Amino acid sequence: MNAILPSSDFEAAIRQIGAERYHHLHPFHRLLHSGQLNREQVQAWALNRYYYQSQIPVKDSLILARLPDSEMRREWRRRIIDHDGDADTPGGIQKWIALATGVGLDRDYVIAGTGILPATRFAVDAYVHFVHERTLLEAIASSLTELFSPNIIGERVRGMLEHYDFISKETLAYFDKRPVQAKQDSDFALDYCIRNARRAEEQQAVLNALTFKCDVLWAQLDALHNAYVDPGHVPPGAWRPGEGSR
Amino acid sequence: MNAILPSSDFEAAIRQIGAERYHHLHPFHRLLHSGQLNREQVQAWALNRYYYQSQIPVKDSLILARLPDSEMRREWRRRIIDHDGDADTPGGIQKWIALATGVGLDRDYVIAGTGILPATRFAVDAYVHFVHERTLLEAIASSLTELFSPNIIGERVRGMLEHYDFISKETLAYFDKRPVQAKQDSDFALDYCIRNARRAEEQQAVLNALTFKCDVLWAQLDALHNAYVDPGHVPPGAWRPGEGSR
Repeated sequence: MNAILPSSDFEAAIRQIGAERYHHLHPFHRLLHSGQLNREQVQAWALNRYYYQSQIPVKDSLILARLPDSEMRREWRRRIIDHDGDADTPGGIQKWIALATGVGLDRDYVIAGTGILPATRFAVDAYVHFVHERTLLEAIASSLTELFSPNIIGERVRGMLEHYDFISKETLAYFDKRPVQAKQDSDFALDYCIRNARRAEEQQAVLNALTFKCDVLWAQLDALHNAYVDPGHVPPGAWRPGEGSR
Repeated sequence: MNAILPSSDFEAAIRQIGAERYHHLHPFHRLLHSGQLNREQVQAWALNRYYYQSQIPVKDSLILARLPDSEMRREWRRRIIDHDGDADTPGGIQKWIALATGVGLDRDYVIAGTGILPATRFAVDAYVHFVHERTLLEAIASSLTELFSPNIIGERVRGMLEHYDFISKETLAYFDKRPVQAKQDSDFALDYCIRNARRAEEQQAVLNALTFKCDVLWAQLDALHNAYVDPGHVPPGAWRPGEGSR
């Protein structure tokens, strides 16, 4: 039986997983951020990631349903508002649709999701099932990838604006608020995990949940890379360049 | 609203999906069957497909729990016996372990599943969730890929025995009984689907379930191809050649 780690070591172990497994390291992101993709490949990314974005409030609603009191639900509810918006403010999902149409895809085609890669659907659905089936501690821990997102967002926005003439600041408006939101969300989740993982096996469960979530993100980029980067093996029925365009 | 298809047209539509989407068309299978993979790539295939094999009795137990009477449960129970075996006869899972150790992998490593590709797990788990969450008709329809398996098994066994000196007939014993079992199983499932899809939308649900299952099989090979075929992008934490070997 392993001994429980001091909080600082536990947090370091969490951050180490990000350093080794977060999708900032994926070759597809390196291509995306350095201008080495064409417009169709960026469309494939926007189309497939829309499905991930669309399921975030679903997975957060499943967590919301499991939180024990109003204070915690108020805290977590903010995530759903961030992505679904309200009467006055568009949410992240709406902004992602704007990103997808901004790179030339048809709005209804994106929302229908018919052209996404099956592997995208399997990975995203695995995330939704995970937060439904595992402990609340593991469900919350699986959101800790947000600890690592502010850096990649800065790099992405700078790189895409610099390298792609079909990308405007308005197209990337989704990312404007994400670093602040992600910091607020992940501060809460990290604090929750550190306070509630009181045994060594609970700490390990947190680390495993974060590893799982890194796998979910990585697998989505693997699928894009396999389907749309040279030579490109598009699975039967999945989107092909030219389809679903405005 | 579409009209319901006559049985013969419905069966033709089912078989058409197999002709267009079954994984006999996947480039990884063409490499596997024609001797163009090395031993490590065959190991990656055996290791990852073990997870699929291991979950078949799980998905069949979920279907078993939903069948309405003893006659149907006796029919479906045979699938579980085929894969789990009994006191006298090894089942498919045990034979797949023999295949994996036969190509040089360590038995305990294979069973633990720690080195499988996350995309393998996501695809296989999507299949288990599908039979749990969808209608019984869709759950049964998702097994219809077995209609198409006898052909590919013959091609695989001939090709692997001819091209790989590290493969013996004993290593491939898993496949000996599968064509007969698959024919018996898929005859029953096809008859069930034809008799129980009585509206156009139920026929469409059957076709969609079979398409989904083809996607599950295809995505597993896509993941293998992406990770282990030139240039090969192995995701963090997944098996690398040399690991988990005897």
